[in-house]
Amino acid sequence: MNRRHFIKQAGVGTLAVGSLGLSTQAQAKTRYRWKMVTTWPKNFPVLGTGANFLAQLINQMTGGRIRVKVYGAGELVPAFEIFDTVSRGTAEMGHGSAYYWKGKSEALQFFSTVPFGLTAQEMNAWLYHGGGMALWQKAYQPFGLQPTAAGNTGVQMAGWFNKQVNNLEDLQGLKMRIPGLGGEVLKRAGGTPVNLPGGELFTALQSGTIDATEWVGPYNDLAFGFHKIAQYYYYPGWHEPGTTLECFINQKALNKLPKDLQSIVLNACRVANQQMEVEFTSLNHAALQTLINKHKVDVRALPDSVLKKLYQLSNEVVAELANQNHFAKTIYNSYYRFRKQVIQWHQISEQAYLNKRSQFN
Amino acid sequence: MNRRHFIKQAGVGTLAVGSLGLSTQAQAKTRYRWKMVTTWPKNFPVLGTGANFLAQLINQMTGGRIRVKVYGAGELVPAFEIFDTVSRGTAEMGHGSAYYWKGKSEALQFFSTVPFGLTAQEMNAWLYHGGGMALWQKAYQPFGLQPTAAGNTGVQMAGWFNKQVNNLEDLQGLKMRIPGLGGEVLKRAGGTPVNLPGGELFTALQSGTIDATEWVGPYNDLAFGFHKIAQYYYYPGWHEPGTTLECFINQKALNKLPKDLQSIVLNACRVANQQMEVEFTSLNHAALQTLINKHKVDVRALPDSVLKKLYQLSNEVVAELANQNHFAKTIYNSYYRFRKQVIQWHQISEQAYLNKRSQFN
Repeated sequence: MNRRHFIKQAGVGTLAVGSLGLSTQAQAKTRYRWKMVTTWPKNFPVLGTGANFLAQLINQMTGGRIRVKVYGAGELVPAFEIFDTVSRGTAEMGHGSAYYWKGKSEALQFFSTVPFGLTAQEMNAWLYHGGGMALWQKAYQPFGLQPTAAGNTGVQMAGWFNKQVNNLEDLQGLKMRIPGLGGEVLKRAGGTPVNLPGGELFTALQSGTIDATEWVGPYNDLAFGFHKIAQYYYYPGWHEPGTTLECFINQKALNKLPKDLQSIVLNACRVANQQMEVEFTSLNHAALQTLINKHKVDVRALPDSVLKKLYQLSNEVVAELANQNHFAKTIYNSYYRFRKQVIQWHQISEQAYLNKRSQFN
Repeated sequence: MNRRHFIKQAGVGTLAVGSLGLSTQAQAKTRYRWKMVTTWPKNFPVLGTGANFLAQLINQMTGGRIRVKVYGAGELVPAFEIFDTVSRGTAEMGHGSAYYWKGKSEALQFFSTVPFGLTAQEMNAWLYHGGGMALWQKAYQPFGLQPTAAGNTGVQMAGWFNKQVNNLEDLQGLKMRIPGLGGEVLKRAGGTPVNLPGGELFTALQSGTIDATEWVGPYNDLAFGFHKIAQYYYYPGWHEPGTTLECFINQKALNKLPKDLQSIVLNACRVANQQMEVEFTSLNHAALQTLINKHKVDVRALPDSVLKKLYQLSNEVVAELANQNHFAKTIYNSYYRFRKQVIQWHQISEQAYLNKRSQFN
């Protein structure tokens, strides 16, 4: 009899009970039933399935002592209500990305991604070893939430457009779905940024509510079918160079767990963080080929003149955000000190290597 | 009383016992005492401390049900004997890198790194989502070992030299510590590759046993003090673009664990894999500045003429390895199919982004 089977027999039907005040021995036997609400359509490739993967991993590593049920966007609450839902304890976990909550505090956007900021590898280094995680914890503490990195998209694509982007004028008046700081940059370039959950993008693009959209990259974008509407697909994703997806946990619910289960939950998020990133890295190429060869999508690089202006505007936008308040400035200083250093290092390591490999390939 | 405290009281002194044949309930109470032997000097930065981190993580996530004691190179067995030690069950876990065991099978080198091959991010994607892990498991199965990825160096530096490398002639007769396939490539370029454990490199370089050495990157290399002997420090690390460090586990010992502990051990290795990589990414810049500004090290790029020849020789060496036997060919096909695809994808994502960010920075 394996352990999972044993637990199935012994534990089914046991309701989750809070173990605060129970002895450690009783805690060790307590079964926990948790809810994870997400901003993603149910079972959406990599993002939704990544949330499922995280739930299964927690179940597996705890031998069933914690069972997590995952809810897609709109199943329990709408996508953009999950932060409040977990904050008040209606669900124990939420999966999304921090820039969705900029209405709470603009500074939270640093924990998703910054235009022309850190890549996935660099973001992980800043969070886990460069002081980023402590700042993120401080930022979510007022909401009673423990943040974790639990996914990363890698460098995104710049987006889908119905017309070519040849110069800055082509961005004037453009209604584009682009969240976070990238949206603010587009606004200063003359566009009209819109934020919508992923599940609403296809219809919005089809109906003309928006003229353009970015989402993630070839694998995810193919799943949504944007190629059926927009012809031009631009790179590189200057606005989201390595977006961290998050799992935030209700702090009181986390505190009720014995220490070993707390560690498992937090480390399962780290594994999920890596897992989503490797899935995107593995799957994007084939999807890109399908988009190009089967769907005749026109893949193009954003011109330097446009990127350069977006770079300047990005610096302005982020500097202004940093000046909003002391805490925003603290996060900015930490992030940009790290960015400056890692750019120099990667110029002679990752970047130098990738360029030489391509040159001789 | 927290859980760890409880276990300390209840569990100290309990000897590890094999639980094969015990009921699942008895298994859940069993305490396991494991040994991890490593190829690294005890507590060596990132590598040795990373092995310690892994052991602590297993202890923490299992609530002390497994306690792992870490041994540095030479403490229990010499660095290059750990594979056999874990294979025969004298220790349960070993931390090293697969190219150290090429004497067992040349094909094992694919699971460390390949000259001009995959970066850390790409290697993880191949292993966890591109079929690499299943091949690695098949490769270690005859030795009774379960492999895991449990660390990555990122793109390494090309190495330390006492004279400049301006052309291919400068590699003639060069006695250089360079393990794995990179060593074979150097041999074809006219050099004499040597493999030595890290702890022996400083003395070998000082005594003139070797003329040059590579190790990892600025943070690790500074710790060994190579700058005290060699003046020139070259990049990029064409020979090791993202070396996977491994933790292999004695399969019988793993099988004796209940399923939840098996999952914890394997996933703790994934977290350690990420942790070492973020430490290198975070720490290399400051160490590089120390090497340049304080120790006056001359940091130089390998010339294109040299890199191009090394690229050609790398292709030859790897293709010959693939032709040694059917299994080597299978691994080669999987690795190079993945490499071809991910290069194309990264040319419009990671690589395109890094180049634009540097251009405007």
